[in-house]
Amino acid sequence: MSSTSTKPPAGTRDFLPDEVRRREHVIRIVRQVYERYGFEPLETPAFENIETLLGKYGEEGNRLIFKILKRGEHETSGEADLALRYDLTVPLARVVAQYQNELPRFWKRYQIQPVWRADRPARGRFREFYQCDIDAIGSTSPAVEADVIGAVCDVLGQLGFEGFSLRLNHRLVLSGLLDAAGVPPPQHSEALVALDKLDKISAGGVRAEFVTRGIDGAAAERCLASFEVGQAERPDDTLRRLRSALGEQDAAVGNLQSIVTLAAHTAAAGRIRIDPSLARGLSYYTGAIMEIAVPDLAGSLGGGGRYDNLVGMFLGRDVPACGFSLGLERIIVVMTERGMFPAKVGGAAVDVMVTMWNEDSRAEGLALAAELRRDGLRVDLYPEADKLGKQLKYAAGRSTPFVAILGDDERAKGMVSIKDMRSGDQHTVARGEAAEHIRSRRQ
Amino acid sequence: MSSTSTKPPAGTRDFLPDEVRRREHVIRIVRQVYERYGFEPLETPAFENIETLLGKYGEEGNRLIFKILKRGEHETSGEADLALRYDLTVPLARVVAQYQNELPRFWKRYQIQPVWRADRPARGRFREFYQCDIDAIGSTSPAVEADVIGAVCDVLGQLGFEGFSLRLNHRLVLSGLLDAAGVPPPQHSEALVALDKLDKISAGGVRAEFVTRGIDGAAAERCLASFEVGQAERPDDTLRRLRSALGEQDAAVGNLQSIVTLAAHTAAAGRIRIDPSLARGLSYYTGAIMEIAVPDLAGSLGGGGRYDNLVGMFLGRDVPACGFSLGLERIIVVMTERGMFPAKVGGAAVDVMVTMWNEDSRAEGLALAAELRRDGLRVDLYPEADKLGKQLKYAAGRSTPFVAILGDDERAKGMVSIKDMRSGDQHTVARGEAAEHIRSRRQ
Repeated sequence: MSSTSTKPPAGTRDFLPDEVRRREHVIRIVRQVYERYGFEPLETPAFENIETLLGKYGEEGNRLIFKILKRGEHETSGEADLALRYDLTVPLARVVAQYQNELPRFWKRYQIQPVWRADRPARGRFREFYQCDIDAIGSTSPAVEADVIGAVCDVLGQLGFEGFSLRLNHRLVLSGLLDAAGVPPPQHSEALVALDKLDKISAGGVRAEFVTRGIDGAAAERCLASFEVGQAERPDDTLRRLRSALGEQDAAVGNLQSIVTLAAHTAAAGRIRIDPSLARGLSYYTGAIMEIAVPDLAGSLGGGGRYDNLVGMFLGRDVPACGFSLGLERIIVVMTERGMFPAKVGGAAVDVMVTMWNEDSRAEGLALAAELRRDGLRVDLYPEADKLGKQLKYAAGRSTPFVAILGDDERAKGMVSIKDMRSGDQHTVARGEAAEHIRSRRQ
Repeated sequence: MSSTSTKPPAGTRDFLPDEVRRREHVIRIVRQVYERYGFEPLETPAFENIETLLGKYGEEGNRLIFKILKRGEHETSGEADLALRYDLTVPLARVVAQYQNELPRFWKRYQIQPVWRADRPARGRFREFYQCDIDAIGSTSPAVEADVIGAVCDVLGQLGFEGFSLRLNHRLVLSGLLDAAGVPPPQHSEALVALDKLDKISAGGVRAEFVTRGIDGAAAERCLASFEVGQAERPDDTLRRLRSALGEQDAAVGNLQSIVTLAAHTAAAGRIRIDPSLARGLSYYTGAIMEIAVPDLAGSLGGGGRYDNLVGMFLGRDVPACGFSLGLERIIVVMTERGMFPAKVGGAAVDVMVTMWNEDSRAEGLALAAELRRDGLRVDLYPEADKLGKQLKYAAGRSTPFVAILGDDERAKGMVSIKDMRSGDQHTVARGEAAEHIRSRRQ
């Protein structure tokens, strides 16, 4: 049995304490900001009935879903009836359909939970990863997009991100530009796959992709001309160009204009860049689409958009919706590389360790620990009567700032010695004053 | 597509906002107390390689594990290579083996994550449920058991539980008593299954079970005599009886005596009841075993014990360990039934809702919301320009305590009207004073 591998499964990770603390730090801030925007928490099961997920994510999605074998007598059928959550949006749509009478007309929910995709594991790509989603259900107002964009930019600002931008586009602007360039509708999705790579492979690469995908050369050139946007171009200038390409009255461009105008009054002020080449992979988007771009990071920290038809796939009638998903892992990768975590997040696990003087002192050590814990301190208790030097070395190795020593002398007098492990100073104080002594010397 | 069921899968639940808040309240307290005891957070993947789990939980366990189908070209084999986490203890043992060189010699970890068991769903029994585990690795000292028991009792005390008790026993006391009663070792496990039901089906029922299971009548009577303990019996009296049955020098009884003596100095003081009939289902326990009993609740809020051989199944050499698992769902069931949640846990999602006066006021509404959020308030924004009465009704329906009205008059003067939805009072204040106005009137 000892030959069993002790590694976690491919594409998954164990999070040891320091890493959990970093993750909790990010999640705490994300949750706090989301709640300030009036989003309410939702949690859904790790798995869904398989038919809830199949057909919602396109062909590749179907392939990447983890499927759970039937149980009991049906196990030998080799068939699956359940599947692990693949994103947080489809479960939300199911929830909106199921609880429509209990939920408010405009429902804003956040959800921070893991999802699973059977992607080939690679650097920074995991099979188990967390999404931090917000979605606003029930309104088509562009104020919703502005609010969502503001919340996401606020989260990143609170985490300490600078210099990020929000790429904004609209599904109907995309198809309008393709129409205008002369790409026939059946070729739209082929063209979008190529254009989606514009920021990765540049115009030359996209041009080659167009050829491979059988798109007319002249149409391809017109596409590229209308999709390329200067990095420093202001949203109003891009919108002006879009209006001249699609017409002054184009509704999608007007919608983008409203979103840009409104979002200027939120935490997204100055962050927005209209990017007509932004496509977003998922097929359920129907309106505005967006993505967070960070300098020097390939890919995005998250993305989202409006999807007014997805709830209808469960409910039978459409309910408008708009949301955004931040990727916890990508945020943590960037924050770690850039040293953005406050020092306290990696701090010691406890404030003080109570040493074990001898077997007789055990009960009193536990009693002292209980007193200090009642005072709110985090207290460890060395469990064995090892030599004091060994116990101190153990505490130092764990960066424990204080050690409490209950020797025979101290015990006889109702006192305790508190050693500051950073300065080496040691003070003998009355038991009842130990917590205050430590607290006042803690950073 | 609208015929897809929108219910969550059998045995699982969606947690709407109020329920998530109740769960978060409990988890926050559990985590805080665990950290005061020096336990550090660990998280492991939702699924493990299937061979990590198989053979660890007995035959029933193997049957109840959710198995994940192989992917890609292997999907059609109908075989599973992964399985959902069944408890938090086996993954911990794997982690201890994998990271032995990075972990401290005495490692105390907590882990609060869901586990999945394909049990038949029933009232209060779910297929997805959370465990809140603590485990102390590396020492055989009875101070470890005392510390673990203290932490668990402290958690329950902080949550507001009263009148609970901690049933304590020892695996070797169990087998010693069965030996002394004349039950031959091959029949021990049969006898334990029967005895485990003593608090559910009383002595008469257990007597009948013994007969069914082919255990000698006289031995059965001796068993029952030594296992029955009066509800009010003090631990020292039970220990005295055990010593007279098993010998003054019995090591297991001595270990229980040490634990009881030490735990009297912890938050478990006065809670412990030695119960020689306590068996605990899982087969990996090797020493002390324990369970939390609450009056009027069938079953327990959690249980644990010492398991000195489980890590060895992964590592090849044994590492002593002792832990306890609290069941989140059972805690919440009892707290809900007894009205133990503080009122604030069910409070409003936001502090104030900004109304939308007309299309022109949208941008200013977003700007006001941004100001109030910067001040730390939780702010919702009504997204459409409906009649004010409708917006107020919506806010009242959501128990929103304050509504901010930015009418044409207010906007012209740089003011905002704040309506207290509980008293009906309305004050017009300068925009810059709105946050303070709300904060000072909030409960």
